[in-house]
Amino acid sequence: MVYKKVTLIGRSGESFDAAVDDAVDRAQETLDNVHWVEVVEMGVEIASVDSREYQAEVEVAFELQSGTDE
Amino acid sequence: MVYKKVTLIGRSGESFDAAVDDAVDRAQETLDNVHWVEVVEMGVEIASVDSREYQAEVEVAFELQSGTDE
Amino acid sequence: MVYKKVTLIGRSGESFDAAVDDAVDRAQETLDNVHWVEVVEMGVEIASVDSREYQAEVEVAFELQSGTDE
Amino acid sequence: MVYKKVTLIGRSGESFDAAVDDAVDRAQETLDNVHWVEVVEMGVEIASVDSREYQAEVEVAFELQSGTDE
Amino acid sequence: MVYKKVTLIGRSGESFDAAVDDAVDRAQETLDNVHWVEVVEMGVEIASVDSREYQAEVEVAFELQSGTDE
Amino acid sequence: MVYKKVTLIGRSGESFDAAVDDAVDRAQETLDNVHWVEVVEMGVEIASVDSREYQAEVEVAFELQSGTDE
Amino acid sequence: MVYKKVTLIGRSGESFDAAVDDAVDRAQETLDNVHWVEVVEMGVEIASVDSREYQAEVEVAFELQSGTDE
Amino acid sequence: MVYKKVTLIGRSGESFDAAVDDAVDRAQETLDNVHWVEVVEMGVEIASVDSREYQAEVEVAFELQSGTDE
Amino acid sequence: MVYKKVTLIGRSGESFDAAVDDAVDRAQETLDNVHWVEVVEMGVEIASVDSREYQAEVEVAFELQSGTDE
Amino acid sequence: MVYKKVTLIGRSGESFDAAVDDAVDRAQETLDNVHWVEVVEMGVEIASVDSREYQAEVEVAFELQSGTDE
Amino acid sequence: MVYKKVTLIGRSGESFDAAVDDAVDRAQETLDNVHWVEVVEMGVEIASVDSREYQAEVEVAFELQSGTDE
Amino acid sequence: MVYKKVTLIGRSGESFDAAVDDAVDRAQETLDNVHWVEVVEMGVEIASVDSREYQAEVEVAFELQSGTDE
Repeated sequence: MVYKKVTLIGRSGESFDAAVDDAVDRAQETLDNVHWVEVVEMGVEIASVDSREYQAEVEVAFELQSGTDE
Repeated sequence: MVYKKVTLIGRSGESFDAAVDDAVDRAQETLDNVHWVEVVEMGVEIASVDSREYQAEVEVAFELQSGTDE
Repeated sequence: MVYKKVTLIGRSGESFDAAVDDAVDRAQETLDNVHWVEVVEMGVEIASVDSREYQAEVEVAFELQSGTDE
Repeated sequence: MVYKKVTLIGRSGESFDAAVDDAVDRAQETLDNVHWVEVVEMGVEIASVDSREYQAEVEVAFELQSGTDE
Repeated sequence: MVYKKVTLIGRSGESFDAAVDDAVDRAQETLDNVHWVEVVEMGVEIASVDSREYQAEVEVAFELQSGTDE
Repeated sequence: MVYKKVTLIGRSGESFDAAVDDAVDRAQETLDNVHWVEVVEMGVEIASVDSREYQAEVEVAFELQSGTDE
Repeated sequence: MVYKKVTLIGRSGESFDAAVDDAVDRAQETLDNVHWVEVVEMGVEIASVDSREYQAEVEVAFELQSGTDE
Repeated sequence: MVYKKVTLIGRSGESFDAAVDDAVDRAQETLDNVHWVEVVEMGVEIASVDSREYQAEVEVAFELQSGTDE
Repeated sequence: MVYKKVTLIGRSGESFDAAVDDAVDRAQETLDNVHWVEVVEMGVEIASVDSREYQAEVEVAFELQSGTDE
Repeated sequence: MVYKKVTLIGRSGESFDAAVDDAVDRAQETLDNVHWVEVVEMGVEIASVDSREYQAEVEVAFELQSGTDE
Repeated sequence: MVYKKVTLIGRSGESFDAAVDDAVDRAQETLDNVHWVEVVEMGVEIASVDSREYQAEVEVAFELQSGTDE
Repeated sequence: MVYKKVTLIGRSGESFDAAVDDAVDRAQETLDNVHWVEVVEMGVEIASVDSREYQAEVEVAFELQSGTDE
């Protein structure tokens, strides 16, 4: 079966590891068959939050099921 | 909450600004909580249109809501 | 109308051409108005399959219809 | 038939849109069958001109005719 | 004399051209001998502003004067 | 003698290999002394053709002869 | 107001998170209005330090004030 | 255990698929535990061979065994 | 003396920092004179492991000794 | 007037500076109004030459004259 | 202490080596603790100078001192 | 036969040409059948050496012999 990739940005007040986990957690809540994740960008948002928000943009690859809408 | 990014290509017979706005308009019609947009490519289609069609490929970042399907 | 791009990874035990076709076939089963495809990465998976699995990551561009959910 | 791409840099005292159009206009004066254009760089020249010159580097794709010299 | 490059992000509620001009205007207020500008990124901020803010990240090249601090 | 590179896009209804060969064939019809070719992009055109058209953008390097016009 | 970006490399004997924080701390000591930070490179220095020094190169974006020297 | 990547360039008079297989064949003759391969460049050598030689540069990832020399 | 770079992928069930350390530990077991390390990619493997495996691809630079085989 | 860019590869048995000059010399023999040159790649050919051949791939920008064929 | 990087473009009528040295010389006149330099672009200016001006864009990394303004 | 590429960093107190030659010299001492070299990065080390050390990172391509260990 074909894989599909979606791009998510996880966020954490603690660390980049937690920001990546935040995106993976979300992906696994709504997608079956998540296979791997690639980190494509990391940054820190400062102006619009209380202290520092660590952000990680990731591409999540999962296996499409037959009959599933893209 | 996690952000998600989708890739759209806006089109305009007038200008690149209008092509970007075309993609942002479409995103805001069907997505809540659009936060920002990144322009990733610009081009002009000539052979298959009457005159010139300005195109702008953009990545649209929006905040995912709980319970929303990816 | 605006175009949208999605990222798929086609797979084949035979060749890269067949891996690209695998992704395009899947896209055309569930999406109307596929316009073009760009190949962004090619690789071979070896450890988790019997022999060699050719993989092609592609971006599929299709025209969004009015009222369609992104 | 095969396409060929050439790289031009259009220039305008007014805007980036006009700089792109400048390059496309020139291409269409001397080349038949221009199909599409990709914008690869944009800049502003200041030191050697009166005010500001907007520049757009574009790749112009056109269809080669049989018997035409490359 | 050596050139130096600094990175600025101009902003406009109107257009990308105006966002680039915003950055060049600022550079010319505080720097002598601005020679050229390269556009490196364009985007639109939506969530934190009233409507849409067009942003252009540019690298500004200017000639360093003798005795000037870097 | 100096080499020159030109950019061609070969096309085939069959395969990417045939699309690359299409561009090399064309280059060798009109250019002497083709030395090597680099594949820079691959894609599939769908909307404007009957079935699928495989396309390969290549850079063709050839040796310039004395007195030849660039 | 225009944003400016500067490039800093934070360093830590402990972790990449601490190396990024080191750069952000320094930026906030001497710059007002830091808005966001982008991580552009990560590495580990070994030969010239006692054990391992984690390094993170970041671009720091802050809002320029009127009358401030670039 | 840690993975290591090495860069090989496979060659074939027939096709790019055969050129990739050529590199993978060679890797599997002398390396245990090859896990996956990434294609990083493709080209055609013409001047120094009889007809056309298809070349594929690949990165081969394999699992290092304990006590193995890098 | 000349430096050489090799590419390793460290793995950890805990964090990206630990994945980088895993690769550096391995390099220092079998190579003398490791000077520095550059992180080139980070990802998470999910499908083939129990929970999540953090992976970091790094380039390790070390000083070649005279008479050492490349 | 519009600028055009062509890609040349200069060659020298002596140095990279001489290889760049070789390409610029050739461009100036057959093209009027060469404005600037960008170095895009450098390499050394060894197998097919007596000793070492330094090569520099450059993009040459020149001003197109009215009525000139592209 | 944190490192900072600034971007300079050195210029020479003689060679690229001299252009790089020109930028490093300038950096060392006004900055303490310059640690290393990375070459990011090389080019030749022709139209606005007598003969040829070799240019090298470099990033200069130096150690920030406490209390120093960024 | 398959080619293999290794990455070396040559060093010289004199020039970038000499730094590239330093890496090629070393490669040719321990490897048979070196075919070509690609320059991938250039820099200057300052802090840890007496004056300036020019460095050139190169990829060296050589032909693997049958029965040779990778």
